[in-house]
Amino acid sequence: MTPDVAAAKQALSHIEMDENPATIRSKSRDFFWYSPMLKARLDHVQADFVVNPKSEAEVIEVLKTCYAHDVPVTVRGAGTGNYGQAMPLAGGCVMHMKNFAQVKEIHPGRVIVEPGCIIKDLDAATRAHSGQEVRMMPSTANTATIGGFVAGGSGGVGSVKWGALRDLGNIIRLRVITMEAEPRVLEFRGEELARVSHAYGTNGIITEIEMPLAPAYDWVDMFVAFDSFPEAAQYACDLANEDGIVLKLASVYEAPMAHSYFQRVKEHVTETDTLVGLMVAPHSMDGFETFTARRPGARIIFRSDANDWPRDPGPVFEFGWNHTTLRALKFDPKITYLQVRYQFPKHLELVEKVRATFGAEVLQHLEVLREGGKVCFAGLPLVSYTSDERLEEIVRMHEDMGCMIFNPHRYTLEEGGRQSADARQLAFKREADPKGLLNPGKMITWDDPDWAYDRIYDYPGMLQVEP
Amino acid sequence: MTPDVAAAKQALSHIEMDENPATIRSKSRDFFWYSPMLKARLDHVQADFVVNPKSEAEVIEVLKTCYAHDVPVTVRGAGTGNYGQAMPLAGGCVMHMKNFAQVKEIHPGRVIVEPGCIIKDLDAATRAHSGQEVRMMPSTANTATIGGFVAGGSGGVGSVKWGALRDLGNIIRLRVITMEAEPRVLEFRGEELARVSHAYGTNGIITEIEMPLAPAYDWVDMFVAFDSFPEAAQYACDLANEDGIVLKLASVYEAPMAHSYFQRVKEHVTETDTLVGLMVAPHSMDGFETFTARRPGARIIFRSDANDWPRDPGPVFEFGWNHTTLRALKFDPKITYLQVRYQFPKHLELVEKVRATFGAEVLQHLEVLREGGKVCFAGLPLVSYTSDERLEEIVRMHEDMGCMIFNPHRYTLEEGGRQSADARQLAFKREADPKGLLNPGKMITWDDPDWAYDRIYDYPGMLQVEP
Ligand SMILES: Cc1cc2nc3c(=O)[nH]c(=O)nc-3n(C[C@H](O)[C@H](O)[C@H](O)COP(=O)(O)OP(=O)(O)OC[C@H]3O[C@@H](n4cnc5c(N)ncnc54)[C@H](O)[C@@H]3O)c2cc1C
Ligand SMILES: Cc1cc2nc3c(=O)[nH]c(=O)nc-3n(C[C@H](O)[C@H](O)[C@H](O)COP(=O)(O)OP(=O)(O)OC[C@H]3O[C@@H](n4cnc5c(N)ncnc54)[C@H](O)[C@@H]3O)c2cc1C
Repeated sequence: MTPDVAAAKQALSHIEMDENPATIRSKSRDFFWYSPMLKARLDHVQADFVVNPKSEAEVIEVLKTCYAHDVPVTVRGAGTGNYGQAMPLAGGCVMHMKNFAQVKEIHPGRVIVEPGCIIKDLDAATRAHSGQEVRMMPSTANTATIGGFVAGGSGGVGSVKWGALRDLGNIIRLRVITMEAEPRVLEFRGEELARVSHAYGTNGIITEIEMPLAPAYDWVDMFVAFDSFPEAAQYACDLANEDGIVLKLASVYEAPMAHSYFQRVKEHVTETDTLVGLMVAPHSMDGFETFTARRPGARIIFRSDANDWPRDPGPVFEFGWNHTTLRALKFDPKITYLQVRYQFPKHLELVEKVRATFGAEVLQHLEVLREGGKVCFAGLPLVSYTSDERLEEIVRMHEDMGCMIFNPHRYTLEEGGRQSADARQLAFKREADPKGLLNPGKMITWDDPDWAYDRIYDYPGMLQVEP
Repeated sequence: MTPDVAAAKQALSHIEMDENPATIRSKSRDFFWYSPMLKARLDHVQADFVVNPKSEAEVIEVLKTCYAHDVPVTVRGAGTGNYGQAMPLAGGCVMHMKNFAQVKEIHPGRVIVEPGCIIKDLDAATRAHSGQEVRMMPSTANTATIGGFVAGGSGGVGSVKWGALRDLGNIIRLRVITMEAEPRVLEFRGEELARVSHAYGTNGIITEIEMPLAPAYDWVDMFVAFDSFPEAAQYACDLANEDGIVLKLASVYEAPMAHSYFQRVKEHVTETDTLVGLMVAPHSMDGFETFTARRPGARIIFRSDANDWPRDPGPVFEFGWNHTTLRALKFDPKITYLQVRYQFPKHLELVEKVRATFGAEVLQHLEVLREGGKVCFAGLPLVSYTSDERLEEIVRMHEDMGCMIFNPHRYTLEEGGRQSADARQLAFKREADPKGLLNPGKMITWDDPDWAYDRIYDYPGMLQVEP
């Protein structure tokens, strides 16, 4: 099965394409370079061409044509994913969804939208229409697409209230196109959603998304400082357990993170300040202030509704989730990160165990989220990178302590998840992508069902580094 | 201090009054008769006159005049309270708020309203204005006032998501008038709210209320039947722990409650069916159905969005909370009830312990609610009444097993709560009601600070039964 790239390109020439090699290179990359391990392995990856469909009909044409010519197709939202999710490991076609981005219908509690819509634009539309917004968004909402979020993301700003994207009710319906001689159009709800959500576009292309909405408020952004990390973590957790206070974000940044890496915040904190970043609904501010006044250790140093800082720090959510790592990387390219789940009821205790074990080598950044109705933490700690071996050891040590790790130093679905095949995703790939052309190399069980997970998977079909 | 009722009446004659003795009698009563113990003690209680102010200025006039003439004032919303809360134990003036009921301002996430507004009317106004509604309401929302809810209620429909009325953020601001020679107008927020919320109008009259709002959806009402009670309780609890599914109500009715007492439901259930009553947001129905399909024991027997019952059962919330008791009482006047809190994490276990102990004498009716961020149960079990002594024993046995009881067979704040003085409410009564004229007999610590709580409190100032 040799791809006939030229024939596919020719057949698709009436659809908008990017020809410029620099553009093709940049559209073949995402934020994989957060990981020194992925940086070393994926830096050379590049598509043969980039096509920009503007409708479902054009998506179908791209898929049908590439199927006919055995050309791999890797779909791209905005390419803000972190693990090479949108990178065409085997080359071929990158299908960029930026032109396929209409908001189609808005109703109380839900919206129907095309996948290429930037989340910021989606929120602007639902807010203008009826004071609503998506329940949760990645901290990249200003650039990321809703399709990329559903296919590659997991949760984020809003998860403190709504849990993760994969939780029942957080996606309503997905319309999906298969990669076959005659692509089929399927509609998924309920249990079926798990086939393609967070499947990295390996088994179908999402062309329409129905998402639940929450009320959009004029969120008050805040920073609250603490001398003590455990006190800050407890505060964030307790606040999120206040049923009557509407929160959208609660992040905890261990000292000296804010002082070292947070531009415009730096001058307002010391090296020993642990910071809590918050988004609170304006009508919850009285409750919030009452709650906070009960904690003598809590100092509100910034609030966007009464900002006396000479330079606005920008949205607080762009300090949280994976933006924390980005900010640290700007100061120190030797930093990388992990994705840890500290589950209820041991979450606070586990964090302290990890802190005691690693000290400054693994600096704690926690995001409060709900899991199964309970408040707990997603950790995105900053890790001081020394070698791949040490990084792997740090991961193992976390697991040995009882933390769940979603390894961001892997580019496959299985290794970034629970290290096992997702039977539903695999079964659907068999149906929907019989030639295995969709985002090749991202589903180990497709290529090598007997893989032992004893080391990082090396996709045999990966483009070779040019000499 | 002898009240001069005639002088007070005379001075207030320009304000609307009820003169008809039957009206005065009915406006002196509430749902105290749910309790055989209170029925025996309060049945004769009656005001001397009923006044219906229509503005804050008139409220101030009533308070000032009654203060001058030493006349007790008991404020009344709609009189749907359950423990004689709104009953004028020492006679005097009942101030009925029905004419003082304007919705003043509606904003995203909050509303400002006068106390006499019926909750149904308030919801209609906020829904029409901007698709919003109050976060929680008593199951009496179709008749009860928002003022009576804040001053006498505790939570209800919506508490499965928002917790209790007393939780931070569930009331934003209260405007309160004192009972003095020159009544003062005070504004309370934050910690101060606890002075007058759930204080039965014993230490100030609420004249303006600012409440947070939630989005109003076209809630889908449902009944789900189970063969097994523990399975039903687990189902309701697990559903409420689904962070992505928007619920407003989750009630559990042990068999044969639904078959014995629920008109229009009876013919659709058997004597062994335990029922779960639910309100689910329409955009959460897919998630809900997916969740429910995973439980083979769950049978959806009614859904309001696809109703095939010949006779509509009416709103599902009017089967829940204290309406369950009302429905049972219509069939069997020997039934009464308790108010139990089964706290996380032992809630399911405790319920089973109680069931094993009492069997059919105490039939379980659970309402799922959030407390401190955790899903647990409020129990409003139906109790087969035999004697006061046995009722008291049942209460004690619950407490011995580790359940918290809010005793509905008591008319005082302390006995209906945690059996101890609320220092904030008492301190504020000293300031705001120096003559002790507001709703006399409801705060034990005002009358008898050394009361030992060894038996039901008998207010010495209670009107004597006429011979
Ligand atoms: C600074 C920073 C912060 C971040 N914060 C978060 C966060 O808070 N939460 C979070 O979940 N993620 C986060 N991420 C990761 C990423 O930004 C989000 O997941 C984002 O939603 C991805 O959207 P995108 O449009 O950039 O998708 P892309 O990166 O372009 O694609 C993501 C994956 O989805 C697939 N895909 C895209 N569109 C479709 C489609 N229509 N059909 C099928 N498959 C498709 C792609 O092939 C790829 O595998 C962060 C990343 C960075 C760099
Ligand atoms: C069938 C049934 C179901 C119920 N379900 C619930 C439920 O789900 N949740 C719940 O919490 N309760 C419930 N209750 C109790 C009651 O219905 C509610 O608390 C209701 O909100 C009371 O409102 P109301 O207007 O009838 O108040 P009233 O009974 O008139 O008054 C309640 C108390 O508030 C005081 N008060 C009233 N207005 C003011 C004011 N402006 N300023 C100061 N004090 C004032 C009164 O003096 C009295 O002490 C139920 C009762 C019944 C009979």
